[in-house]
Amino acid sequence: MENNIKLNLDYSKISNHEIMTYSEKVKKIHKDLNNKVDDKKYFTGWINWPEEYDKKEFEKIKKIANKVKKDSDVLIVIGIGGSYLGARAVIESLKYVTNKENSVEIIYVGNNLSANYINEIIDYVSDKEISINVISKSGKTTEPAIAFRIFRNLMENKYGIDGARKRIFVTTTKRKGALYKIAVQEKYVKLYIPENIGGRYSVLTSVGLLPMAVAGINIEDIMSGAKFAQEKYSDDNLKYNDCYKYAVARNILYERDKTIEIMGTYEPNLFYLIEWWKQLYGESEGKNYSGIFPSGAIYTTDLHSLGQYVQEGRRNIFETILNIKNTDSDIIINYDEENLDELNYIAGKTITYVKNKAMLGTIQAHVDGDVPNIIIDIDKINEFTIGHLLYFFEKACAMSGNLLGINPFDQPGVEKYKENMFNLLGKYE
Amino acid sequence: MENNIKLNLDYSKISNHEIMTYSEKVKKIHKDLNNKVDDKKYFTGWINWPEEYDKKEFEKIKKIANKVKKDSDVLIVIGIGGSYLGARAVIESLKYVTNKENSVEIIYVGNNLSANYINEIIDYVSDKEISINVISKSGKTTEPAIAFRIFRNLMENKYGIDGARKRIFVTTTKRKGALYKIAVQEKYVKLYIPENIGGRYSVLTSVGLLPMAVAGINIEDIMSGAKFAQEKYSDDNLKYNDCYKYAVARNILYERDKTIEIMGTYEPNLFYLIEWWKQLYGESEGKNYSGIFPSGAIYTTDLHSLGQYVQEGRRNIFETILNIKNTDSDIIINYDEENLDELNYIAGKTITYVKNKAMLGTIQAHVDGDVPNIIIDIDKINEFTIGHLLYFFEKACAMSGNLLGINPFDQPGVEKYKENMFNLLGKYE
Repeated sequence: MENNIKLNLDYSKISNHEIMTYSEKVKKIHKDLNNKVDDKKYFTGWINWPEEYDKKEFEKIKKIANKVKKDSDVLIVIGIGGSYLGARAVIESLKYVTNKENSVEIIYVGNNLSANYINEIIDYVSDKEISINVISKSGKTTEPAIAFRIFRNLMENKYGIDGARKRIFVTTTKRKGALYKIAVQEKYVKLYIPENIGGRYSVLTSVGLLPMAVAGINIEDIMSGAKFAQEKYSDDNLKYNDCYKYAVARNILYERDKTIEIMGTYEPNLFYLIEWWKQLYGESEGKNYSGIFPSGAIYTTDLHSLGQYVQEGRRNIFETILNIKNTDSDIIINYDEENLDELNYIAGKTITYVKNKAMLGTIQAHVDGDVPNIIIDIDKINEFTIGHLLYFFEKACAMSGNLLGINPFDQPGVEKYKENMFNLLGKYE
Repeated sequence: MENNIKLNLDYSKISNHEIMTYSEKVKKIHKDLNNKVDDKKYFTGWINWPEEYDKKEFEKIKKIANKVKKDSDVLIVIGIGGSYLGARAVIESLKYVTNKENSVEIIYVGNNLSANYINEIIDYVSDKEISINVISKSGKTTEPAIAFRIFRNLMENKYGIDGARKRIFVTTTKRKGALYKIAVQEKYVKLYIPENIGGRYSVLTSVGLLPMAVAGINIEDIMSGAKFAQEKYSDDNLKYNDCYKYAVARNILYERDKTIEIMGTYEPNLFYLIEWWKQLYGESEGKNYSGIFPSGAIYTTDLHSLGQYVQEGRRNIFETILNIKNTDSDIIINYDEENLDELNYIAGKTITYVKNKAMLGTIQAHVDGDVPNIIIDIDKINEFTIGHLLYFFEKACAMSGNLLGINPFDQPGVEKYKENMFNLLGKYE
């Protein structure tokens, strides 16, 4: 059981009976989701993706990754939202298990409008060999489009137009959109984003897989973990489906006015996994003036900042804790003759041992303070469990959004600031 | 007006009249705060600190910083919560204005219980010259105490006991606590945390200033900015006091069930400034089962993740936007013959120009969606404005907490998880 992921509702203040009252609803939504899998307009292509992904494209990704590893020090990933968060989440989560010698550094641009940030990166890569992976469904999203103009120009000045061509890899929609056209015209190597998979559900497609592979991650194992999860969570019986139980539990808590979910972990390198989760859930569920507000916390760090609020602030919070049971390395706390810091009672123990007790103590304290805790027990972080976890959260999100009564696959509100911005910039004049 | 900071309530949906109804309340709290300044039990020493700080200690900090710059590649800062967040906030905020050649890299440990994280740092510093600044009021807080055991051991193995002595700098309470005792016994150089200033208000004391100075920051200018703010915000007339207006505005919004405040910025390097703000406000106000939940966002990045929720989720949110008007560098968007990405309408403009329009468009969109926005206009980020801003938030927090009817200077809830943890670890057996 080295690669197990298990939902633990013991601290959730929800009885099994309550969960099971959702059985029929869950069955219905499950069936409905499955019926929509093959209909492109529903953006449900991710459901069977771990089994049905394009194997030829997958081989192409590995080939490109090998080329980049040979000729580049850095891969610049240009993308925003779902076009970079998934890759970054996985790459950072696996940083302690990835073989550094088989890894190229990944740098992310096109996800903000900070001139300082972009200039810093231009400066950083000036003496390095670079490749680019530009990721955009349309090619017209302002932030990545600007970044691509800048870095394409930089590449052409550095390597010449022909040289740049061999170092720019485009991930976009097949036969559609501005970026596709640019890629055809400039003869860039292309990878495709399936049309029936939305941005925030795209981590297991070329969108996420190329940067992962370049970073030295075994993407076969990622897909195996996802496939394992696809099978595991295809059971429409709530009793045996942890993924749906998570969806139901958070909806029960939401009904009890727990309107903020803090996704917490004790491993700082999972920060971007939580950012990815925040997008997945916030963008899927924040509709019709409802939905759980997704927030993140890195403990024990944030126990010394948000901790007071979680313990004694408004009682509208629940927590979901990613409990990583085994770490890749450890440290034994040394004995100290003087013991002025009074730590000798844990001398000889490991840091992970102390962390586990801190976690348990925190869960108890927060639950006592009326903050229900959902625990996701994860044996260890590796490619297989990360693939599993990504799919777990995707499937749970689809179920949860439907339980909430909204469409978890659109994002109508994201366009509003863009429209205002285009007007202010005079795009339509 | 190059160093100006100004509160803008035009998008807050609060009338000036409403603000001014708080005049008398504010006057009373102001007076009460001033009366408590000299009473150590109230932790209000930070109020007059920018004028009355220990000048001799300040010179000592600069001397230590110069020594570390001469003999170290890295300064390891050991501290958690208020003992590292302030320094990190300032150092990251100023990263684009700091002279890199006058700067030593700062690394932060003792703020978590991740063995992977600590091992990564041990590995990273193995071939570098290092100094340590350990920061703790008591010296017994678990996370920094463990880290100090580990890194003190590492230093003694690397430099010998005498050599390590010259590279370990202790910031703690005068004549009290475990860390003070260790420092005396080991003859470490000591800096002091004033007893009447709490952790989250301590950024302008030795706690924050030594790491800042080592990182190449002009700490005189930081203190000048804070002193300017101290004078500016000492006016008890709400009409002329932006700092108190911010406090009042957020309390009015809280009364209207806006229970989540998102502190947002368009500059990613302000991430830790927001983390510092989250601690300051969350730990000060999250009491009696009330208080605004403090959250952060980096835009435009998070418009593609949290954006949907902010636009159309539950209407319990308001935003406070740090608007940095001038950036230290810029980039002109290049013209492209083909224009397939349709960006030529902004060719010749700068990224900062586009960012400003994106910001304005976002504010309008969110306000239209019933998310009130408070804007803090900041001419530019430099030592002086950061010093100003830190004091602004501290003073506003004291006012805000008092308006809310809680004591903004204690943190009773932080102890609960610790007690559970100590029991689980068998500390009292």
